[in-house]
Amino acid sequence: MKNILFSFFLADSLGKFPLAFWLVPVASVVALMMAWLFFRSMMGADEGSPRMREIAGHVRRGAMAYLKQQYKVVAIVFAVLALLFAFMAYGLHVQNTWVPFAFLTGGFFSGLAGFFGMKTATYASARTANAARKSLDGGLKIAFRSGAVMGLTVVGLGLLDIALWFLVLNRFDPNGLISITTTMLTFGMGASTQALFARVGGGIYTKAADVGADIVGKVEADIPEDDPRNPATIADNVGDNVGDVAGMGADLYESYCGSILSTAALGAVAFAGSAQEGMQMKAVIAPMLIAAVGVFLSIIGIYLVRTKEGATMRDLLRSLSVGTNVSAVLIAIATFAILYLLKIENWMGLSFSVVTGLAAGVIIGQATEYYTSHSYKPTQKISEAGLTGSATVIIKGIGTGMISTCIPVITIGVAIMLSYLCANGFNSTMSAEALSHGLYGIGIAAVGMLSTLGITLATDAYGPIADNAGGNAEMSELGEEVRHRTDALDALGNTTAATGKGFAIGSAALTALALLASYIEEVKIAMERAGMTLTNLKGDIIDASQASIPDFMNYFQVNLMNPRVLVGAFIGAMAAFLFCGLTMEAVGRAAQKMVEEVRRQFREIAGILEGKATPDYGRCVEISTRAAQHEMIFPSLLAIAIPIVVGCVLGVAGVLGLLVGGLAGGFTLAVFMANAGGAWDNAKKMVEEGNFGGKGSFAHKATIVGDTVGDPFKDTSGPSLNILIKLMSMVSIVMAGLTIAFS
Amino acid sequence: MKNILFSFFLADSLGKFPLAFWLVPVASVVALMMAWLFFRSMMGADEGSPRMREIAGHVRRGAMAYLKQQYKVVAIVFAVLALLFAFMAYGLHVQNTWVPFAFLTGGFFSGLAGFFGMKTATYASARTANAARKSLDGGLKIAFRSGAVMGLTVVGLGLLDIALWFLVLNRFDPNGLISITTTMLTFGMGASTQALFARVGGGIYTKAADVGADIVGKVEADIPEDDPRNPATIADNVGDNVGDVAGMGADLYESYCGSILSTAALGAVAFAGSAQEGMQMKAVIAPMLIAAVGVFLSIIGIYLVRTKEGATMRDLLRSLSVGTNVSAVLIAIATFAILYLLKIENWMGLSFSVVTGLAAGVIIGQATEYYTSHSYKPTQKISEAGLTGSATVIIKGIGTGMISTCIPVITIGVAIMLSYLCANGFNSTMSAEALSHGLYGIGIAAVGMLSTLGITLATDAYGPIADNAGGNAEMSELGEEVRHRTDALDALGNTTAATGKGFAIGSAALTALALLASYIEEVKIAMERAGMTLTNLKGDIIDASQASIPDFMNYFQVNLMNPRVLVGAFIGAMAAFLFCGLTMEAVGRAAQKMVEEVRRQFREIAGILEGKATPDYGRCVEISTRAAQHEMIFPSLLAIAIPIVVGCVLGVAGVLGLLVGGLAGGFTLAVFMANAGGAWDNAKKMVEEGNFGGKGSFAHKATIVGDTVGDPFKDTSGPSLNILIKLMSMVSIVMAGLTIAFS
Repeated sequence: MKNILFSFFLADSLGKFPLAFWLVPVASVVALMMAWLFFRSMMGADEGSPRMREIAGHVRRGAMAYLKQQYKVVAIVFAVLALLFAFMAYGLHVQNTWVPFAFLTGGFFSGLAGFFGMKTATYASARTANAARKSLDGGLKIAFRSGAVMGLTVVGLGLLDIALWFLVLNRFDPNGLISITTTMLTFGMGASTQALFARVGGGIYTKAADVGADIVGKVEADIPEDDPRNPATIADNVGDNVGDVAGMGADLYESYCGSILSTAALGAVAFAGSAQEGMQMKAVIAPMLIAAVGVFLSIIGIYLVRTKEGATMRDLLRSLSVGTNVSAVLIAIATFAILYLLKIENWMGLSFSVVTGLAAGVIIGQATEYYTSHSYKPTQKISEAGLTGSATVIIKGIGTGMISTCIPVITIGVAIMLSYLCANGFNSTMSAEALSHGLYGIGIAAVGMLSTLGITLATDAYGPIADNAGGNAEMSELGEEVRHRTDALDALGNTTAATGKGFAIGSAALTALALLASYIEEVKIAMERAGMTLTNLKGDIIDASQASIPDFMNYFQVNLMNPRVLVGAFIGAMAAFLFCGLTMEAVGRAAQKMVEEVRRQFREIAGILEGKATPDYGRCVEISTRAAQHEMIFPSLLAIAIPIVVGCVLGVAGVLGLLVGGLAGGFTLAVFMANAGGAWDNAKKMVEEGNFGGKGSFAHKATIVGDTVGDPFKDTSGPSLNILIKLMSMVSIVMAGLTIAFS
Repeated sequence: MKNILFSFFLADSLGKFPLAFWLVPVASVVALMMAWLFFRSMMGADEGSPRMREIAGHVRRGAMAYLKQQYKVVAIVFAVLALLFAFMAYGLHVQNTWVPFAFLTGGFFSGLAGFFGMKTATYASARTANAARKSLDGGLKIAFRSGAVMGLTVVGLGLLDIALWFLVLNRFDPNGLISITTTMLTFGMGASTQALFARVGGGIYTKAADVGADIVGKVEADIPEDDPRNPATIADNVGDNVGDVAGMGADLYESYCGSILSTAALGAVAFAGSAQEGMQMKAVIAPMLIAAVGVFLSIIGIYLVRTKEGATMRDLLRSLSVGTNVSAVLIAIATFAILYLLKIENWMGLSFSVVTGLAAGVIIGQATEYYTSHSYKPTQKISEAGLTGSATVIIKGIGTGMISTCIPVITIGVAIMLSYLCANGFNSTMSAEALSHGLYGIGIAAVGMLSTLGITLATDAYGPIADNAGGNAEMSELGEEVRHRTDALDALGNTTAATGKGFAIGSAALTALALLASYIEEVKIAMERAGMTLTNLKGDIIDASQASIPDFMNYFQVNLMNPRVLVGAFIGAMAAFLFCGLTMEAVGRAAQKMVEEVRRQFREIAGILEGKATPDYGRCVEISTRAAQHEMIFPSLLAIAIPIVVGCVLGVAGVLGLLVGGLAGGFTLAVFMANAGGAWDNAKKMVEEGNFGGKGSFAHKATIVGDTVGDPFKDTSGPSLNILIKLMSMVSIVMAGLTIAFS
């Protein structure tokens, strides 16, 4: 029995991979099938009254219209970039010839996942509201399993893309695993580009609508959230879908693929010289296997999520936690088994690296909850600051957000050191071998963190569905009790959204680190392609293919006294701020347009505020759509351009400085913005629950200002930084050939 | 004639320095004498009516009481640190034996400069207001020359400290110039520590009072700024002095000494192996000479500042610009002469490095003006956002601030590359020699930027004096025309404050870079002291004293693939956010206390708002004083502790990562905060000038919220970051021995 199991994991030579590899495509197909099942079962539920169907229809059409517009713009960008890559590959010969095609599949699959996820979400909201008419558990189940459609589609399509390309390249690329994995790595560029537009465009869309709706509705006209009299309310609900469902999905699709692919590439390098047969192949497929097993465990977790009528917020949270925590514990155990069966060198240490990643994810999530939930002091203090006005709310929120960066950064720091040291047997000499094994450990920690994405993303995507269900219930004027239930589901969604954001940024940081390490491999390949030699640390002139990472560090002088590195680091940190600033301004501009339109409708369409006339919802949807399309272009192109320009001007050392500066500065900035935004949101909720004067009080008005400022913080600029830090690495990797040719 | 001039600059052997060196103490004495003259002439002016004297007396007593309190706390910290250094030096032998004493002189002189500056400022404000009763020119002259007292005291005491220690060590330290200069460098630690408390404590004081006064006064009670009915108004005026005069002075005192000392240390290293006799000595005293000549040229500039009655804002700005620009152009020319006469190697290239620094200072100043003055679009757009409410004002301001980081960062980046390349003859090989000469170039660029500090600091310190004069005029109920004049002087002060902040942060960045390079030298000395050897790049085992910077980079693996470096960079960026967050929260807490006190007085003291009863000013002064004292301790100790802990845990590589992450992240964050704050301030002013509805309108209320949030941005957290990035380098330098002993 045991021997059969081992033989399943046996890799004997190049081109032959263990039978266990087939788990990857199988997991992918199972995930997609389960997603289909959940989708069918959700579609089978009743969508409710004609009014509910009508509102859901508005939202669905708005969301699909937006997605269509966005994909049009993205298609143009993809066409241009694919042509550019084709020219680089076939014209300049500074690029791998597979890249143009792979780039397109990465983008296509990511887009497809966004499409399915959003379709599901927009069908699910009215059904969730309708189920909530009967019971809380019914509502939770529909909303959460619809969220799971997104989660499973993302991991299913991600693994499918990876498995297909691995099978193809393993068959057709004769240059060995290092070449195969570094080629596959560049496929991530497609997913990155798609994610960039999804996050930035979606983020601008949703917050333009939300901020606009809040300013005129809540502050000026004094009508509640999601009130059908507010012309921007449909746009606001559409926004939740395009921003939080499609945007978040594309973001994590990228992290998921990026972490697996970069870890595979690092594994191919680390175990290239291994004396044991097949060890390199095992290291390459190990991250894929962990991810595949994670799919099955996520599905188990999804089935564990249930609640009973009359559940408190705490019960609801616990029921979600049971699902995610059981999955996490199971994957930790499974990892030890997988790596043991693979008989990979230092399997125990590597397993602990995976555990480190998982633990880091949990800690960051907990810290996020602490800083953003009004069950704890930081957010309570922000509420209290409402008593002295909106200025102190903002000051306090910014202070809290900045302080909240401490735990996540230290957690990531410890995770980096531990996963590095566990993987290389606590060897701190920085020899070529210790370094390559350690970096593989950092990569596999990222894979560990993301292995249960199927369920963690389900809890994220659940949020906007519940939010929309609440909107639908409000607009359809369902009874008090129904709205009470949807409010409970929505409140839960706010908490999972905050922890989900912590998770997204944490995984983005580890993924970006793994990509950083992979960049050097791409540089090596680019130098080989150009037939270049270099002087190694011993002073011998050798082929690029023979050089180790320390050799490269010395050759390119990637040390902190090199002014190119320093200037690169400055530009990296600045890029994060610039990118955030541009997206903040975009939201500000778009929101101002929305405010003007809503004011115009209140003024010109008689009877809106009395509920006698229907507002022109379509006009507001159009404003958000157009603003998002228009405003996403410049920041997005900038994110792509910066690493290219820095590469051409400052060379490899400058690029690495840029990536490290961007990563350190961007990660911290992203945590700050996400947490400040989340805390403001909940500080407002706390006042609305009757504290410090309750609804309509001075403190309430003050905290609404905080919430409105926090909207683009937490849903536009902050999350977009996840993409920025990964994308800059991806662009550098794909452009490594150009950088080498130039410098 | 020419030969006499050359002989004046001749350095023949160790211990003998050129006669020209005596320019340094002479310049120092001249600066102090001129400061005395300006002080006397200001004191000779009439302080105005009894009411004006009374108010000035309140402010003066409040300011001095605060300074006394602060110096008490600081004295304790200094005593503890001096004992610690003494233990490290005499007990553990991991520290130079001169350091404990030098540490104390650095702190003492910095504190003295703050004391003189503030004394002058508090005597000058009523006199400025009184002179403005007669003419604008009179007011400008008194305010500006009183500011010059601060500028000249800072440069005078700074050069005095440097000259004295150089003479002493040159006489008593037999270990050569590298030892002397690196020892002197550690003296900066005293100035840093003093500056930290001055900036943080002063920053918290001033903004607690200002925010508190604004919230209750302007927003709630609807009374104008500086109205005598507002109980917090005296505290607000005291705050301008302790924050903007004493705090800014200590900040730039540190930059000034730090840049000169670190450049001297870099020069000693770069020219250690020079074949030409005395070249090393020349390189060491060159930055001192440039600074000394800068003193004379600053004095010339100060005399050029004058205006005529009926001058517009543009005229006033021009008159200040004439002074600073003439000084800058003259020092550029003088630098070529000095370095030519010194016959220093590559004198032409080094002179261009100085010009680079000067130009960078000007560009950053201009960019700051563009983003913060309401003569330009960015700030105008923030004003316009006031039409849609305070939330959009905040969003827009944050967006603008973030975008505004772009030009300063690119400017600093270009300045780094150019000053580096000019100084080493455009050698980009990163050989040990190219590197050490290039780093000397970066240092001397910082010296260039700061060489005319005498006048640039005068324009900074002028601001709060004019501001206080306005306050005095308002509270003394001087006529319309007088207030019109003081308003003009105050508005000018706001612009110079903004550009001054850009200058302070730019110079802090270059200084921190130079300190970064010096850190390696301290590590070398620490290793020599410990009798350690290392393996150099060729693989030979050598004494630490023989190793070059590239050898150290390789030995400590200070490259971007070392996880210690990466974790250090993460922590560095986080430290900047954490520090900002703590100071923001401190202001928020203190302001809330102030608001409650003012509300209490309005409630309990009958007749205040009708002007029939005098508010209890003293109570508000006390609240600010106590809050500042209490709140400054934790962030300050944290700033000192972080580099020590990182050094012990992550070693030299981790410390360098920390410093680079802190520098890149901190610089960008500081620019963002300073510019966002400045822009909000002027956006409010623009509305007050009658735009978008003018005073009392909806847009006005919205922009007041922006201004209030901006207060701690631009005057507490942002400027404190200047200190943080320099101090972390300084602490690392002083603790290098401990780091080496630990790792």
